[in-house]
Amino acid sequence: MRGFSSRKTVEEALQWVDRHCNPLSPETIPLEDAHGRVLATDICSDMDVPQFDRSMMDGFAVRAEDTNGASTYNSIRLNIIDEALPGKPASAIVQPGDAVRIMTGAPIPEGADAVIPVEHTTLSDNQILVHDTVPEQKHIGEVGEDVASGTTVFHAGRELRPQDIGVLSSIGKACVEVIRKPIVRLLITGSELVAAGQQPGNYQIADANGPMLAALITRDSGTPHHPGITQDSPDAIREQMQQPADILLVSGGSSVGQEDHAPVILAEQGELAIHGIAMRPSSPTGMGLLDEKIIFLLPGNPVSCFCAYDFFAGRAIRRLAGKDSAWPYQQASLPLARKLISKVGRTDYARVQVINGKVQPLAISGASVLTSTTRADGFVVIPEDSEGYAEDTHVVVHYYG
Amino acid sequence: MRGFSSRKTVEEALQWVDRHCNPLSPETIPLEDAHGRVLATDICSDMDVPQFDRSMMDGFAVRAEDTNGASTYNSIRLNIIDEALPGKPASAIVQPGDAVRIMTGAPIPEGADAVIPVEHTTLSDNQILVHDTVPEQKHIGEVGEDVASGTTVFHAGRELRPQDIGVLSSIGKACVEVIRKPIVRLLITGSELVAAGQQPGNYQIADANGPMLAALITRDSGTPHHPGITQDSPDAIREQMQQPADILLVSGGSSVGQEDHAPVILAEQGELAIHGIAMRPSSPTGMGLLDEKIIFLLPGNPVSCFCAYDFFAGRAIRRLAGKDSAWPYQQASLPLARKLISKVGRTDYARVQVINGKVQPLAISGASVLTSTTRADGFVVIPEDSEGYAEDTHVVVHYYG
Repeated sequence: MRGFSSRKTVEEALQWVDRHCNPLSPETIPLEDAHGRVLATDICSDMDVPQFDRSMMDGFAVRAEDTNGASTYNSIRLNIIDEALPGKPASAIVQPGDAVRIMTGAPIPEGADAVIPVEHTTLSDNQILVHDTVPEQKHIGEVGEDVASGTTVFHAGRELRPQDIGVLSSIGKACVEVIRKPIVRLLITGSELVAAGQQPGNYQIADANGPMLAALITRDSGTPHHPGITQDSPDAIREQMQQPADILLVSGGSSVGQEDHAPVILAEQGELAIHGIAMRPSSPTGMGLLDEKIIFLLPGNPVSCFCAYDFFAGRAIRRLAGKDSAWPYQQASLPLARKLISKVGRTDYARVQVINGKVQPLAISGASVLTSTTRADGFVVIPEDSEGYAEDTHVVVHYYG
Repeated sequence: MRGFSSRKTVEEALQWVDRHCNPLSPETIPLEDAHGRVLATDICSDMDVPQFDRSMMDGFAVRAEDTNGASTYNSIRLNIIDEALPGKPASAIVQPGDAVRIMTGAPIPEGADAVIPVEHTTLSDNQILVHDTVPEQKHIGEVGEDVASGTTVFHAGRELRPQDIGVLSSIGKACVEVIRKPIVRLLITGSELVAAGQQPGNYQIADANGPMLAALITRDSGTPHHPGITQDSPDAIREQMQQPADILLVSGGSSVGQEDHAPVILAEQGELAIHGIAMRPSSPTGMGLLDEKIIFLLPGNPVSCFCAYDFFAGRAIRRLAGKDSAWPYQQASLPLARKLISKVGRTDYARVQVINGKVQPLAISGASVLTSTTRADGFVVIPEDSEGYAEDTHVVVHYYG
């Protein structure tokens, strides 16, 4: 039985991921699909928003100087000569003594330079009595007030929010150039596995890792491709490993036993850069390159698979998609309800519950008990230079989901 | 010109939303689509996971009593009689003096009651030398260790995480019953509007609200239906308002002006429960019911539209989808870089930037400047009983995106 030739630290493995995972090439997509995607280029507006001076109030467009001296005790009379509605400008030109009825959002008519709100006027046949003085430009939204032509509205690398989609629409963009989403292929092996959705027979178990990884990949902005269970033979694994993808995740057979084919095949066909990581669970994790493809060898035990994905593969996918490398989990610093033991020289991933504001480590019941991650509220990482923490120490909880 | 008959507080409007928005009926979907969805029923497992005792190590399945007294100085010799691999059980029965070579995940052969790890043995032809004593059940994962048959693994109302999908798969679920996603129809009005992706002509503006609302609805687990721009006429609005949906969002014409048709039509055809809310922006917001449909009247100004959506419509959609009502924004309590002024009697929504750990309110440049929400990192809510906050006061920032 072969051993791991040299175990790497979590930090070394993360550095390998960061060195090999950079944003993919751009693609152009319709604006309606762009929420959450990452801009590949700066976006410069070639138009003003709005493209015309517009009223910010319902009222009357006037010449400001015509209202000079107007007050509740000294109303000034103006003639209503026309009406301006949004999308329907007035045709008349405002001359001294004129007013144009105007609605919020309507274009300011030629000759007018202020809007007097309706509540400061009284209507009298085709005239208004103005009860207030307005200065020039009052209640007028100017050309380019929201976006001036030539402005860079967003920089490359921005993850688009809903309101960004609104702004892009307002500057006339129907499409947008974003970082392509990585295609992440799954290679699930295990002679004991039946595909998700099938009832396992004697000595069989239903695949948990494939559906779980597909959900994680989607969360991290990858596009999962899951061709089903691969037979646990070197030929079948070699053939699947050569399929096109940006990233390939192999689940199962990642260790150093006689039936662990994937590391051997990767070392033969490409580069097995890292094999064996000083962490618990997930120590039999590997990573490397085959042609341009980034390959992660994840342990078959579901908790180890989940943890190895979350430490390394998820980060790789997010980086390829142009997203923030960091975990997508909310964090809180909270006191431990009881001590949490670890071992110097290895990074520990402890599932915890948060009960009454205190962190309760779950009994570590082995890497095969996936329900330890569903009973948990989140996890605590104990770095390799730590022996663990005493009761009441504040630790950072990363909340699942 | 009509006024708002009685303005409601934000709190009253939220109470109306909570009273009228409860989780929708269930639907059954494939497991692969279930990530992020909300369970409509408890999930009970009708099988054990695993369904057989299995080895947790690579090594040898033995009778524990055969290893009694074994140590580095007192090795005990056992005969290798068979091999057990995952999915391929041994056929032999372990008798006194026997060992079965076994891999992690393989079924424990009949007669064996412990596994001795390979590193505590030496191979010698068809025999092993055992260098350690193992107690009964050592390194054996028992039947039902992960999930025992009859266990309720998840309760109704749970939002499914990636690892939950893994557990559901492991208990043989191909489908799952979840709360239906609300269908949210958009009714975007405004004679000055051209549809997203079209170049606006003179006195026209490209619709920002439709694409922005569609992205928000998707974020909040609704399914947006956006039929395009609706002409600003009572007949067109009335017809669109009667289309089927769980929620209808009307953007534009929500106030009390002569061209604000939607509130009048909703009051005629159904119930205009709330019209006018003591907040800034978004005070011309309305909500009500038409048959079973929940209708929100959102102001046309994009910032007001965004804010009114986020206070009320987003919450309604999340509640219908069975999700947590709360905002999906991360929060932090940080000191103000300068004072933030508000007015008693009205809730204020202030866009802010966070610079060097301090909260910088953005100049409030009007409800029509959507880029104020894209330049901002998030927002601060100033409740209606507050006049605002002095410099250095800690305020809660809700981070966008």
